Amino acid sequence: MQLHSRVPVRPDVPTLEWHDNHLRILDQRCLPESRIWVECRDAADAAAAISDGVVQDASATGLVAAYGIALAAQRIGRADDWVAALEADFASLARTQPSSVHLNWVLRMLGERLRRLSDPQLDVPELLAQAAISLHASDLETRRVTGRLAAHAIRRHDREAQKFLVQAAPAALGAIQGAHAAGLVEQVYMCADASADATRLAQWELDQAEVPVALQQVGAAGQLMKSDNLQWVVVGAQRIAANGDVINDVGTYALAILAMHHGLRFMVVASSSAFDLALENADELEPDDSLLMVNDQLLLDVTPAELIDVIVTERGLVERPDESRIAELLSPQRLH
Amino acid sequence: MQLHSRVPVRPDVPTLEWHDNHLRILDQRCLPESRIWVECRDAADAAAAISDGVVQDASATGLVAAYGIALAAQRIGRADDWVAALEADFASLARTQPSSVHLNWVLRMLGERLRRLSDPQLDVPELLAQAAISLHASDLETRRVTGRLAAHAIRRHDREAQKFLVQAAPAALGAIQGAHAAGLVEQVYMCADASADATRLAQWELDQAEVPVALQQVGAAGQLMKSDNLQWVVVGAQRIAANGDVINDVGTYALAILAMHHGLRFMVVASSSAFDLALENADELEPDDSLLMVNDQLLLDVTPAELIDVIVTERGLVERPDESRIAELLSPQRLH
Repeated sequence: MQLHSRVPVRPDVPTLEWHDNHLRILDQRCLPESRIWVECRDAADAAAAISDGVVQDASATGLVAAYGIALAAQRIGRADDWVAALEADFASLARTQPSSVHLNWVLRMLGERLRRLSDPQLDVPELLAQAAISLHASDLETRRVTGRLAAHAIRRHDREAQKFLVQAAPAALGAIQGAHAAGLVEQVYMCADASADATRLAQWELDQAEVPVALQQVGAAGQLMKSDNLQWVVVGAQRIAANGDVINDVGTYALAILAMHHGLRFMVVASSSAFDLALENADELEPDDSLLMVNDQLLLDVTPAELIDVIVTERGLVERPDESRIAELLSPQRLH
Repeated sequence: MQLHSRVPVRPDVPTLEWHDNHLRILDQRCLPESRIWVECRDAADAAAAISDGVVQDASATGLVAAYGIALAAQRIGRADDWVAALEADFASLARTQPSSVHLNWVLRMLGERLRRLSDPQLDVPELLAQAAISLHASDLETRRVTGRLAAHAIRRHDREAQKFLVQAAPAALGAIQGAHAAGLVEQVYMCADASADATRLAQWELDQAEVPVALQQVGAAGQLMKSDNLQWVVVGAQRIAANGDVINDVGTYALAILAMHHGLRFMVVASSSAFDLALENADELEPDDSLLMVNDQLLLDVTPAELIDVIVTERGLVERPDESRIAELLSPQRLH
């Protein structure tokens, strides 16, 4: 089998391509003004792409790391002990974003596969490339499924097109695109720093999908909810505790309080890999907990489960999340 | 009388000086790294200082405009019709920040004085310089008095040092400095964009006054209130309606909702010139009202009076503000 496999990216959002044994990344820093593709031919290129912000969202960062490991193995070619051979590449990719749950999860998952290798005759570079490719396909599928499920969750309450306030997070944007495809989006507001790469990428992505989106100042959420008859807030999640408390970019909690105060529904969209069942709950974390604070800066906050109407994952919905509903969602039996 | 008058600025925050017939401004864009003084010798220099962001807060901008008019008159020297002679300078200064209530107020006030001139023998350049100097002195006095009154308002409720969340607005900082001088400040948090000039100036100013201040991300307010036992939120105001509704930088309303939800007290600090009694109330303004929105961007929001515990001005306090309490504060009799 050749390594010429190619994941077809969605025509509306092509941002990563594995092609002719190397990785091409659409540079998120240059969007929407220009489309510049960055080529990665080894793990160092992939690590630099993450460190330099060529990719920024958690999902794309995880994919670039996975492809980076595949590129490293390809360059090495043959090894008796693949764990030892790739150790430095794993470490350098992990160092690019030590606080990213998703990046750590991807590297840990690939590391475990390597340690479990039984047959020394296996073509490991090809195996790792296939692992990255299927992660990529699964990310696209996750986004498609969560979009459809988000539309389903909205339609349980509302049959007409709605006004949304949405964070510039990929999972949340996927939900909005799903809702838009189902005819449920009248208007989307993003309250974000217009100069931030993530915001410009998010706006570009929604524009591509022809979703009507208006960018407003950070802080405008309260006034919009009060005076423009919004119905839904849609956010992402960095980590979700076993009871449904959500750890996410600072400001998420304020949106949840404002949503409650103004009678809006509050939706959290995330991959099921965001659940951290070892964390019983998060609402009683101290403000200087390392889960929230980095270098004396509060980068994340906690939205308690009781402020959340629905959590949408690729495995299904959890309405009014609590420990038992989340356990049921994540139970292996549920898939059979 | 010579024009060599000099307003002594407070040693801790020297930002503007009128000296030897010209104006010197401490460049707010370069603080705190370096202290660079910008010299203004005519109205065009003053207008450029405002347009270029050498000064940014409303109070300093108003003073620079007033000194700018004085510089223009000085350059003209003699005129039969001063209103006509200065018309272009008034217009160019007004154009620097058309949406600033305070700048408009300063220029209108000076324009009215000119139109009321009765004695053609008056030394108008000197009169205008004295008007700017007394406005300057009055701004410093306003800030000193509001600081003292803010401390008084806090001590009505709390005798011990408190934790504050404060906006990077000069009036709010004056209140914090007053509270600090009265021993009522344990810790101050500012949740602001660390790269913004206004934030860096505010932090520098509090550092100069040895107020313990920690800068946090925009959006961290909710988590800080929830988990760090804060007691007061202190904000400024761009405009206050007759009933006490406050129009201010977007995000103020969200802070008020969060404060209510977490049981914090909410203080608004402003010069009494911020009251706009022609505006009966502001909470029912449409989101696209020109009082709130500029170029499709929501720049200001409305905090309804019922979320405000106290409004502090140089004329006194209004607790639980409403129309009659505000009318009483502003009544001319009250000063006699």
